[in-house]
Amino acid sequence: MAMKGVIASAVRTLASSGSSASSNTFTRHLHASAGSKKIVGVFYKANEYAELNPNFLGCEERALGIRDWLESQGHKYIVTDDKDGPDCELDKHIPDLHVLISTPFHPAYVTAERIKKAKNLQLLLTAGVGSDHIDLKAAAAAGLTVAEVTGSNVVSVAEDELMRILILVRNFVPGYTQIVNGEWKVAGISHRAYDLEGKTVGTVGAGRIGKLLLQRLKPFNCHLLYHDRFKIDPELEQQIGAKFEEDLDAMLPKCDVIVINTPLTEKTRGLFDKERIAKCKKGVLIVNNARGAIMDTQAVVDASSSGHIAGYSGDVWNPQPAPKDHPWRYMPNHAMTPHISGTTIDAQLRYAAGTKDMLDRYFKGEDFPAQNYIVKDGKIASQYQ
Amino acid sequence: MAMKGVIASAVRTLASSGSSASSNTFTRHLHASAGSKKIVGVFYKANEYAELNPNFLGCEERALGIRDWLESQGHKYIVTDDKDGPDCELDKHIPDLHVLISTPFHPAYVTAERIKKAKNLQLLLTAGVGSDHIDLKAAAAAGLTVAEVTGSNVVSVAEDELMRILILVRNFVPGYTQIVNGEWKVAGISHRAYDLEGKTVGTVGAGRIGKLLLQRLKPFNCHLLYHDRFKIDPELEQQIGAKFEEDLDAMLPKCDVIVINTPLTEKTRGLFDKERIAKCKKGVLIVNNARGAIMDTQAVVDASSSGHIAGYSGDVWNPQPAPKDHPWRYMPNHAMTPHISGTTIDAQLRYAAGTKDMLDRYFKGEDFPAQNYIVKDGKIASQYQ
Repeated sequence: MAMKGVIASAVRTLASSGSSASSNTFTRHLHASAGSKKIVGVFYKANEYAELNPNFLGCEERALGIRDWLESQGHKYIVTDDKDGPDCELDKHIPDLHVLISTPFHPAYVTAERIKKAKNLQLLLTAGVGSDHIDLKAAAAAGLTVAEVTGSNVVSVAEDELMRILILVRNFVPGYTQIVNGEWKVAGISHRAYDLEGKTVGTVGAGRIGKLLLQRLKPFNCHLLYHDRFKIDPELEQQIGAKFEEDLDAMLPKCDVIVINTPLTEKTRGLFDKERIAKCKKGVLIVNNARGAIMDTQAVVDASSSGHIAGYSGDVWNPQPAPKDHPWRYMPNHAMTPHISGTTIDAQLRYAAGTKDMLDRYFKGEDFPAQNYIVKDGKIASQYQ
Repeated sequence: MAMKGVIASAVRTLASSGSSASSNTFTRHLHASAGSKKIVGVFYKANEYAELNPNFLGCEERALGIRDWLESQGHKYIVTDDKDGPDCELDKHIPDLHVLISTPFHPAYVTAERIKKAKNLQLLLTAGVGSDHIDLKAAAAAGLTVAEVTGSNVVSVAEDELMRILILVRNFVPGYTQIVNGEWKVAGISHRAYDLEGKTVGTVGAGRIGKLLLQRLKPFNCHLLYHDRFKIDPELEQQIGAKFEEDLDAMLPKCDVIVINTPLTEKTRGLFDKERIAKCKKGVLIVNNARGAIMDTQAVVDASSSGHIAGYSGDVWNPQPAPKDHPWRYMPNHAMTPHISGTTIDAQLRYAAGTKDMLDRYFKGEDFPAQNYIVKDGKIASQYQ
């Protein structure tokens, strides 16, 4: 019955596509044609952790929990974590896959070269939020659809950012390290531990995640600033008590804590280079769960070593996985983790459901929720422009 | 001029003390008599950290920043971190000190035996909050005044608790550990990382710190519960959206996260023993910045090892400093630190100022702010009963 539905809806789509106002010559099969699709999912491997939690859907072994559903409809579902380097598993499937699903936590880098080789590719889905691992211009030019599960992990990331702000402000990491090393030197922690109360926190970007962070910061009695292309809705702005800063470089020297909440685009790549970091207050704390490439890697290391940056915490790196010799692993006063903030169990349940929903709509020839589209009909969503 | 003032006020005090309604036969010189006092301060040593921050007042080297002020008035000010064991520096001064200042971070344990030997002792001051390092019954019986700087670090501790809740819920520590060890295994973290949103958080105790924590938890959209002897003011309760739980044992099984916010008293010592921990939900996360002795040490280790407790974080130990072989250093899934939450630089400035204020009032024969008294006129404050 499922197959029949897919075929029927695909036929409907084909029948109607000719008259669709949104179709254009760049679009390669925007909706699924009838028949079996080859879907490839790239996820991080769980190994010994796979069986420890029935809701651990985001790993390679569970593959979003959609295998039975896909296969019962006659589709082929290949999953792998082997995504980089010559002869990787992903590259074997590039020539004939129809759909590629990946996550920001273990991103399949979809380059122009891969897009060129992927003759059957129609749809690139991000299980999560953030599609900068895809060459969006090349995807748009090739008529591909790119979509993510917008909103699926914004709460997860905002919570994690507030945790990192507190970890840096209160100097948690050296305290923990002392304990596991058998030490007890309160002074080694407290000489640079502060309250968050009364400090100035600025977010670079106040989209979905930035707003959730500001709301959660509200009861901490900080001075809250935000820089964005747009002002927040005045009612929400007043409720949060955050002040709009039109000029990023004017905001930075005011901030004790800076949080990066902007997508990675051509404009934000390397935004925090040596010169911009120098504009920040000496002793600034920086939290970045957005994307690693927004920072100049070496500039962060140098400023952390000199003490200009007094603490840096985030879960995003360039590239991912971070190699063993990535200098952010070894710079002073960091509180780094692998890319985890958006892949809590709660977030996995949401982005697995959102991905399944989009696949279902794709098979049926239905549109996705509008906010999910990153590339549609050759156009790139505004936040990535 | 300062000396003259002290003497004049001390004389005033002496003149008026006979008619004071609050004086009683147990009270040993509730207000200072004229002349030089010997004041001993016990603080943690800063060593190489002492010079790194001009506001680092809470260490032995800075000694609350009151040395010049005390000495200019003719008082003697001894400071040490050597507080335990035979022949420790503190014990040398017990026989003739008038005032003993200590902190919860490096507590001078004021036993009945020490009180008996301290023939000149009048005043025990806690620079911070929490006077359980003092045998309050013995202090009351000896007519001593015990006071702390109530409120000086409640924000500091509440912020720190929220940090620890997030660290446990989101499984930060193994992520950080992977990074510094050169690893990258997202699954090792994410199989047991959650959002705080939607979870049930209960606080055992909703006094000053508990209320501040609940206020800060409000935007996280949790289910908030609290157990206390008293209900919160109805307006605040409604604003926070927290539900009163009269019966502790009825609240515990509902909680994903339990935060301890009760003072250490005879009633709360060992409150969380094997039986009570067994009443908590399997996989519970526990945050305890209150006092280590509220927990049965071994029961926490056993439940953490079995997985019944899925994470335990706090900065309080029994005793302090925690010995190298304290089992909480080595149990699974902990996020422990030395006792630091109430000794941020901001808190140090507040409790140094509050301690100086009380000494000034003591010299002048004035009462302290009422909420600061822990033992006065032979009576122990209600929260310690």
